[in-house]
Amino acid sequence: MKNLAGFLLESEKLKMVLRQTKPIHEDRYENSAEHSWQAALAGMVLLEYAPPHVNHLTVLKMLIIHDIVEIDAGDVFVYDEKARSDAFEAEAEAATRIFGLLDAPLGSDLLALWHEFEEKQTPEAKFAKAIDRVMPVLQNLNSGGQSWCAHGIKRHQVLAKNAEIENASPALWAYLKTQIEKSPHLAD
Amino acid sequence: MKNLAGFLLESEKLKMVLRQTKPIHEDRYENSAEHSWQAALAGMVLLEYAPPHVNHLTVLKMLIIHDIVEIDAGDVFVYDEKARSDAFEAEAEAATRIFGLLDAPLGSDLLALWHEFEEKQTPEAKFAKAIDRVMPVLQNLNSGGQSWCAHGIKRHQVLAKNAEIENASPALWAYLKTQIEKSPHLAD
Repeated sequence: MKNLAGFLLESEKLKMVLRQTKPIHEDRYENSAEHSWQAALAGMVLLEYAPPHVNHLTVLKMLIIHDIVEIDAGDVFVYDEKARSDAFEAEAEAATRIFGLLDAPLGSDLLALWHEFEEKQTPEAKFAKAIDRVMPVLQNLNSGGQSWCAHGIKRHQVLAKNAEIENASPALWAYLKTQIEKSPHLAD
Repeated sequence: MKNLAGFLLESEKLKMVLRQTKPIHEDRYENSAEHSWQAALAGMVLLEYAPPHVNHLTVLKMLIIHDIVEIDAGDVFVYDEKARSDAFEAEAEAATRIFGLLDAPLGSDLLALWHEFEEKQTPEAKFAKAIDRVMPVLQNLNSGGQSWCAHGIKRHQVLAKNAEIENASPALWAYLKTQIEKSPHLAD
């Protein structure tokens, strides 16, 4: 139990990792722990509309652990393509270290799950990756485009980067796409 | 999708609900969204040691939604028995309102799941309720008893209130109990 407690104490550090997005009602940056909760919540409600072959438990586990590597590697803004690509090696090292705090086979199982999520090949990984895009779009659409404006992100970038939401729910992407297309907070 | 998006936007407010515990490395109170993430993470790793009849998906769903009622009802300190008992009605009303933002049957299913968690009768609810106690103990044991000291909580109270961790993992409770018994930050 000592190693398991050590892993949970290490997870405390994800509360210190700040993202580019502010919670809608607050003048502070959200952290990756609260974002991870909301991603898991979004996954939970959208899984009810998922195709039957998607394993719900796997998706929720992926969403719960997906950002834990940011304890070492930090959060990288999703529209910064170069930084995102550069970050992978550091994130993979972080995954090996952090899940390595747990005893086998649990630690190695979670490491494999994190890699499955990142590789985005399985139905569960495609679904979970798509879910991870949902909240930042909803947040920006309801905050005057806070993180979009702060970084000069253009409408075509938002449409391109978030089209994969269709992998989780075509209906949700159609709903969000319409709002992105008419958002007054995005430059063309 | 409009109702589903409305529910997810409403969930943003859980990031504003502050608890009595500070993250170990920070001088601020944690919010119920980041706590909910960590509870789900703790559930996920401890479920690997759970008896086979416990449904993992149900437990994770319970932990993801368990505190969402605090958007309306606020967080109540777990050692404040009177306030906890008084809070239930407000929390049940909040559950009806917040899960009612979702279409049926999803909203009614989640409302039933929240009540199942609160009633603590099923194996999944007993497990999830026990998991919800783990992090505050670990946090206090590693922060000089921050929220225990702030409220003058005594050793016997900590032992009594958290003994239910045994419902999730007898080994983890044995490990924590030893540390509580010798903690220099608790008065007898």
